[in-house]
Amino acid sequence: MAMSVFTDLAPAQVSAWLGRYSLGTLVDLAGIAAGVENSNFFVTTTHGRYVLTLFERLGRDELPFYLHLMAHLARHGIPCPAPIADRDNEFLGTLAGRPAVIVTCLPGRSVTVADARHCSLVGGMLADMHVAGESYHRHQENPRGPRWWHDTAHLVMPHLTSAEQALLKDELRFQALHRRADIPGGVIHADLFRDNVLFEDGRIGGVIDFYFAGVDALLFDLAVVANDWCTGAGGELDPTRTRALLRAYHPVRALTPLEHGAWPVMLRAAALRFWLSRLHDRFVPRTGHMVLVKEPAEYRDILRRRVADGGQAPWLD
Amino acid sequence: MAMSVFTDLAPAQVSAWLGRYSLGTLVDLAGIAAGVENSNFFVTTTHGRYVLTLFERLGRDELPFYLHLMAHLARHGIPCPAPIADRDNEFLGTLAGRPAVIVTCLPGRSVTVADARHCSLVGGMLADMHVAGESYHRHQENPRGPRWWHDTAHLVMPHLTSAEQALLKDELRFQALHRRADIPGGVIHADLFRDNVLFEDGRIGGVIDFYFAGVDALLFDLAVVANDWCTGAGGELDPTRTRALLRAYHPVRALTPLEHGAWPVMLRAAALRFWLSRLHDRFVPRTGHMVLVKEPAEYRDILRRRVADGGQAPWLD
Repeated sequence: MAMSVFTDLAPAQVSAWLGRYSLGTLVDLAGIAAGVENSNFFVTTTHGRYVLTLFERLGRDELPFYLHLMAHLARHGIPCPAPIADRDNEFLGTLAGRPAVIVTCLPGRSVTVADARHCSLVGGMLADMHVAGESYHRHQENPRGPRWWHDTAHLVMPHLTSAEQALLKDELRFQALHRRADIPGGVIHADLFRDNVLFEDGRIGGVIDFYFAGVDALLFDLAVVANDWCTGAGGELDPTRTRALLRAYHPVRALTPLEHGAWPVMLRAAALRFWLSRLHDRFVPRTGHMVLVKEPAEYRDILRRRVADGGQAPWLD
Repeated sequence: MAMSVFTDLAPAQVSAWLGRYSLGTLVDLAGIAAGVENSNFFVTTTHGRYVLTLFERLGRDELPFYLHLMAHLARHGIPCPAPIADRDNEFLGTLAGRPAVIVTCLPGRSVTVADARHCSLVGGMLADMHVAGESYHRHQENPRGPRWWHDTAHLVMPHLTSAEQALLKDELRFQALHRRADIPGGVIHADLFRDNVLFEDGRIGGVIDFYFAGVDALLFDLAVVANDWCTGAGGELDPTRTRALLRAYHPVRALTPLEHGAWPVMLRAAALRFWLSRLHDRFVPRTGHMVLVKEPAEYRDILRRRVADGGQAPWLD
């Protein structure tokens, strides 16, 4: 994660802006040092605590997909940030010249070390999200899908060693040989790393950061989760945690034989996607006050390991 | 309040029903001994705690107004129960042959003794609700408005003393002389007694029980609150608490000179409405397991006192 306050706000600005909402009056304003994309603030009002986001990357036309998705999932009981509507019944406003939204603040803390219990909880929640997403009817492709892989590979290729270049080219070719269209699809979070799940009192209090969501293979979401939550110190998928993840998911949305077959491919696709985005963040930096970029080598090594596993990966049984 | 579990539910019934939602699996089920209208249950799932309501009085066609109102207010940041949508994206289901809904469970406890601080908080929250309600576009008249007063007066009249009959007839005649149509109107809660507001950590954690809501004079909502929250031991309106209520309301939705003029009339109307409903509950009982009916004489005496005050009532200054 990186510092996220690209734009500063004064309490008087926020007080005036809150006049458009039914949230009471401002009690406290504090910047949040998390997230790599936007400027985020804790806004405490006489009604409670909220999170205010100023969008620094996404454009105004791209935001309704995400905001209505969060509202839809929240209305289905998924503990995700719920956007607050203003007096005109709109989620999206403007503050400091940027698209702005205020959302509910969720309880709990993320874990840095995930055990089988955490993997089980996140598996059940992910399946609930996939099922709740079935009745969401706005459409947006996964913005970090195959087309983006190819564009990004082109940008970062000159910065790689020849061994890395070979790994990247081979993987793009391998993925291009495998069709995703037949695998069950739907709305996916697409970035459900440990730092985007808040635990409280032994259950999930919050699932956050939906700004990479899109429509793609549901199994891709599981692969992103497995690579982050279930990877051991040597880069291998820990069988106990991986099975805990899948066994909690399966009773809510049954995994199919086709998905079983696609699982090793999807784990590689998910590793590729995050290796590429980390390379991009390192070699094609944006302006702003970013202080930390995640290590690309971690996902290069996870991809190498998934390739070496040659189609073997822990499944339900 | 009265015992509210008119219909019993078995855990297996609720578990099966929860399969239609994205709320995880059932952990605990417990009947709630509160409310006079419906059967209510605390439902704890792996996602958290919810309230399940089986509707015993309201029909399926009447419920969308209330459920969408709660969803609308929740989306505006009002801490009210938010209905949870099922896999078909519907709020309203069927359980044990009755219309059924599951809503979020809100934190906090109601107070039996309200001080000026409580009145100030409820005043601000009521104004926020009125403003948030401006963008709610479903319409339903206040179901306990003047037409209902007359119908109910007819039913209970034979059970009253001659002094009570005179008070009731005089008040119906007095109210009929005063037009409500010119006073600012909108969606009102219409039953915001102390037991319907939950306080937590010095703020309002929840506003509950919207099943008497409707469209009427916004000032009527304030009068209902004042009669319950701000009435002293002698039936008089306590000036400190009443002013605290109004002074917190006014900055959010400015009270008008017309409303100032109508205030004593509206306080009488609100007293009349609850005297009538308590008389109705006593003399025209429903079948069911109700164990307690609120005392009608309390509101008869509040009405008498408001009449005796002859147009004088604490206002903003």
